[in-house]
Amino acid sequence: MSAYEPPLQSVRFLVNEVLKAPEALAAAGWEDTTPDLFEAVLAQAGRLAVDVLLPLDRSGDEEGARVEGDGVRMPAGFGEAWRHWREGGWNGLAGDPAYGGQGMPALLDTLVTEMVCAANLAFSITPGLTQGAIRALAAHGDAAVKERCLPPMLAGDWTGAMALTEPQAGTDLGLLRTRAEPAGDGTYRLAGQKMFISSADHDLTGNLVHLVLARLPDAPPGTRGISLFVVPKRLPDGTRNGWSVLSVERKMGLHASPTCVVSYEGAVGWMVGEPHRGLAAMFTMMNHERLFVGIQGIGVGERAAQAALAYARDRVQGRAPGGGGTGGAGDPILHHPDVRRMVLTARLLTDAGRALAGWVALWLDRAAKDPSLAEEAEDWAALLTPVVKAAGTDFGFEAAVLAQQVMGGHGYIRDNGVEQLVRDVRATQIYEGTNGVQALDLVQRKLDLHGGRPLTRMLDAVEDAAATLADDPATAELAEPLRSAADRLRGLACWLRQEGRDPRDGAAGATDLLRLTALVAYGWMWGLTASAAARRPDGYDPAFLDARIGLARLFMTRLLPETAMLDARIRSGYAGLDAGLSDRLEGVEG
Amino acid sequence: MSAYEPPLQSVRFLVNEVLKAPEALAAAGWEDTTPDLFEAVLAQAGRLAVDVLLPLDRSGDEEGARVEGDGVRMPAGFGEAWRHWREGGWNGLAGDPAYGGQGMPALLDTLVTEMVCAANLAFSITPGLTQGAIRALAAHGDAAVKERCLPPMLAGDWTGAMALTEPQAGTDLGLLRTRAEPAGDGTYRLAGQKMFISSADHDLTGNLVHLVLARLPDAPPGTRGISLFVVPKRLPDGTRNGWSVLSVERKMGLHASPTCVVSYEGAVGWMVGEPHRGLAAMFTMMNHERLFVGIQGIGVGERAAQAALAYARDRVQGRAPGGGGTGGAGDPILHHPDVRRMVLTARLLTDAGRALAGWVALWLDRAAKDPSLAEEAEDWAALLTPVVKAAGTDFGFEAAVLAQQVMGGHGYIRDNGVEQLVRDVRATQIYEGTNGVQALDLVQRKLDLHGGRPLTRMLDAVEDAAATLADDPATAELAEPLRSAADRLRGLACWLRQEGRDPRDGAAGATDLLRLTALVAYGWMWGLTASAAARRPDGYDPAFLDARIGLARLFMTRLLPETAMLDARIRSGYAGLDAGLSDRLEGVEG
Repeated sequence: MSAYEPPLQSVRFLVNEVLKAPEALAAAGWEDTTPDLFEAVLAQAGRLAVDVLLPLDRSGDEEGARVEGDGVRMPAGFGEAWRHWREGGWNGLAGDPAYGGQGMPALLDTLVTEMVCAANLAFSITPGLTQGAIRALAAHGDAAVKERCLPPMLAGDWTGAMALTEPQAGTDLGLLRTRAEPAGDGTYRLAGQKMFISSADHDLTGNLVHLVLARLPDAPPGTRGISLFVVPKRLPDGTRNGWSVLSVERKMGLHASPTCVVSYEGAVGWMVGEPHRGLAAMFTMMNHERLFVGIQGIGVGERAAQAALAYARDRVQGRAPGGGGTGGAGDPILHHPDVRRMVLTARLLTDAGRALAGWVALWLDRAAKDPSLAEEAEDWAALLTPVVKAAGTDFGFEAAVLAQQVMGGHGYIRDNGVEQLVRDVRATQIYEGTNGVQALDLVQRKLDLHGGRPLTRMLDAVEDAAATLADDPATAELAEPLRSAADRLRGLACWLRQEGRDPRDGAAGATDLLRLTALVAYGWMWGLTASAAARRPDGYDPAFLDARIGLARLFMTRLLPETAMLDARIRSGYAGLDAGLSDRLEGVEG
Repeated sequence: MSAYEPPLQSVRFLVNEVLKAPEALAAAGWEDTTPDLFEAVLAQAGRLAVDVLLPLDRSGDEEGARVEGDGVRMPAGFGEAWRHWREGGWNGLAGDPAYGGQGMPALLDTLVTEMVCAANLAFSITPGLTQGAIRALAAHGDAAVKERCLPPMLAGDWTGAMALTEPQAGTDLGLLRTRAEPAGDGTYRLAGQKMFISSADHDLTGNLVHLVLARLPDAPPGTRGISLFVVPKRLPDGTRNGWSVLSVERKMGLHASPTCVVSYEGAVGWMVGEPHRGLAAMFTMMNHERLFVGIQGIGVGERAAQAALAYARDRVQGRAPGGGGTGGAGDPILHHPDVRRMVLTARLLTDAGRALAGWVALWLDRAAKDPSLAEEAEDWAALLTPVVKAAGTDFGFEAAVLAQQVMGGHGYIRDNGVEQLVRDVRATQIYEGTNGVQALDLVQRKLDLHGGRPLTRMLDAVEDAAATLADDPATAELAEPLRSAADRLRGLACWLRQEGRDPRDGAAGATDLLRLTALVAYGWMWGLTASAAARRPDGYDPAFLDARIGLARLFMTRLLPETAMLDARIRSGYAGLDAGLSDRLEGVEG
């Protein structure tokens, strides 16, 4: 199995030097969120990840979750791991103290979550969904629902799941058919079938809730006729509610995460929020989950980057060109430039993702205490959520594939663990809105939001970062590539807004545009990182600080030039993709 | 399970109109290789693929090959499939009639092989290795070895495997330790352990042979002290030879292909070729296998491209932008530009790969009958073998991942079959020399071979293709992008040859340079395809001919611009990859 070491120095540097989170949190009104607090909690989370979750990663993959009797059984050891999780208070880490949460910053929760994901991606899903469900219930539930659900959820005695997809309604939720009939006593009876429902059932806790999208009898068609319901497994009187898991999917990976087909047969539910406004309420959960899934990709990327470097340092094979090696009959493969390229690329794609997810979390934290920051925080979250989700997972997959390639045949063998990373992380590019859906969200909704204000904020921040880089001789050469990549993004946003623009142009270039935005954002994060390292703060290994600047340089030299290609491709528009082929692509199959 | 339809129209068009193979073969002295012959054999191969091999693809993945008793047991149905294979004469299709082969062109064998790979990648491995072993024995074996081995191998009564890798010797075969002691009677006794040996044992046939690399007692160290031996499972007197399979690896995919750890304990072997010159002899097999593995990637790409298009035409979800859809409550997702992009990219990456592999095969066929063409054929094979292998498999993997993404959650479910394509094809990027090794072969050995003659041939051929495109108004716009991509490759070859060039520059840019070469070569193949379609030959669906030109246009517009980015990255050289980081990458792990 591939090892994993919590990247504590890197995370500490990010929190204290790049994001300067303790100062920002204190200025917004947070109390006691000191560097020491971050460090203590992260060290504890790291031990949980390594000692409890990592050892179950392979065995969970081998055994898998399954339906047994009237419910889902998790693989051996997962129940015990959940007990550790619950007893450590992790399920309520960032939760509202009014309901028993620990009231810690989302930033800290994000970093803890990444370690959980790195150690055991399948395990991470149940708590990740529960956090989102808690947020949706806290934001939209009435007092009774909150009183009943939040304390046990924050305590880790209940978990949460989201029940959206139906066989005919995946990306297009307007097509969903599950019905909810009022029972006359304030509750509803739900009937219908859902699929792809992660953690819809398990044996980790005695109870759990689904947040279910369904239609009232008088609902208008489409997305404006969808309401949200909370549907527990056990009713307040302890009896089993009227739904069951028909089957658990057999999947490429994430075997220890039950992906359920659920049948609701008069299940009792309580409405959350307003009738027919359920989709908007559900978006509170979905937005949380999109950030969470991005962090899943980053966690896997971290583990893959570690695996690639460790193997490449250890494996001796062939002599490196140009005398760069050790001079023996063979050199560690790390001295082969093409292996070095793969090892470093996995690292470049990971650390900037963590920084970007941290940036969003910190803004949400600041706004949570200082309402004057709410507008800016919402802008950052709106713009960057699809980027964190899609880039975090696309790059996490790339990192895992690269690590596997570094390991050659050994990377293809199950017991070495890296092939599992590839299989597991592949799901994150698909679920919670495919990465194509994230790209459309960015292009069609986020770039022009509030007249383009969020994008302007980001481009201004990138310009500030470039100016700081330019001011220091140690980093000055990094400024120009970053500025020119940002200019491309600015230019494309203008191009998309041009009058008479074919509405299909944005859709045709959406995936490329998200990738370009991600490269600019990752370059920005590497720029901030290099500037922070160039200040040579105390308390870090000098080699670590040097490497931060070298990695930033590498990102600007080798990865940012891709923005030129993406720019050209996006500007070819729908016409470039049309290519004279018919809408139905007649004749293409050969 | 994902369906598969042999792409007969596309293949017929490639053979007759793009490659003009029947004329070229006849001119070189082949007899009876008419379009009708190709069509009849390909139709029969297509039926074998669909009726016999495809139904075993999923079940073979589920059951897997395993060690049982003293040998390897293949999954249910594989023995019966082998019987069909053997009785159809497929194992000897391109083999020498002097030993019972059918003497058909390698081009035809290549196209048949692709169908086998598409239907069942795991099944394809045993015949694919056997073909390479036959070639090595035919080229380097003495009369007795050929007489004993070739007839049963061509008949499909024996199979072949290649035994190179040892735990400490993967890419670097110079490190191998297996010993061969002369027994005094002209035979040798082999002792040592090999790993990652595909099809080292199975129950498909009563006998099989390994081509084993080992050292004689007086062997010098390194690659100049390696000899090649043929080591059967059963000795001429019918007794079991002294080797055994210790275990079969558990892998990410290709479960129905046994990847064996083999222990040789005084196994009897016969030398093939000269003492200490075994690596050169083995390269006859390896070069065949590299082309074969490229075809594996192309076969999987074809199946993936078909799956993506079929799903996207069928699945209704969301309304397409710009009124491009059908006007209902939802449109087939094919009408969504981002889905169209994925479906078409899978197709673009597949058809050109087939054409390029066919180009190489046709040259080998022509030279086999007309020795005056040998030099040119060797040039093409030398230059394009690493390209067919690495690009065929990288692009096959990309196509499979794209198809999975088009299918969303359904692409992640095992029973839908596409996730298996991703798992299976992933191995092809790793085995038979990782794609990084192919890239080094291209940059360090092939670009400058014979003073750059093979590359000049290719660039001249690309120029001819561009001139033909420019001459026809239907394709004129395709000429310039192709020329400018070819110019980049030409310029890079000069750049690499500059005096004083750091030897690490080529290694640092090798993977990018192989990809750039592949994009130029694929663009060239699309150019030939478009010109052939613009001639509007009889006997093809007009929509098919139109689509060939549209696809070529799409390739030039959307995929060729990547060459500019690759060019910039390659020119950043080792300095760009060095980035001031230490050779051991100290501090990079965070």
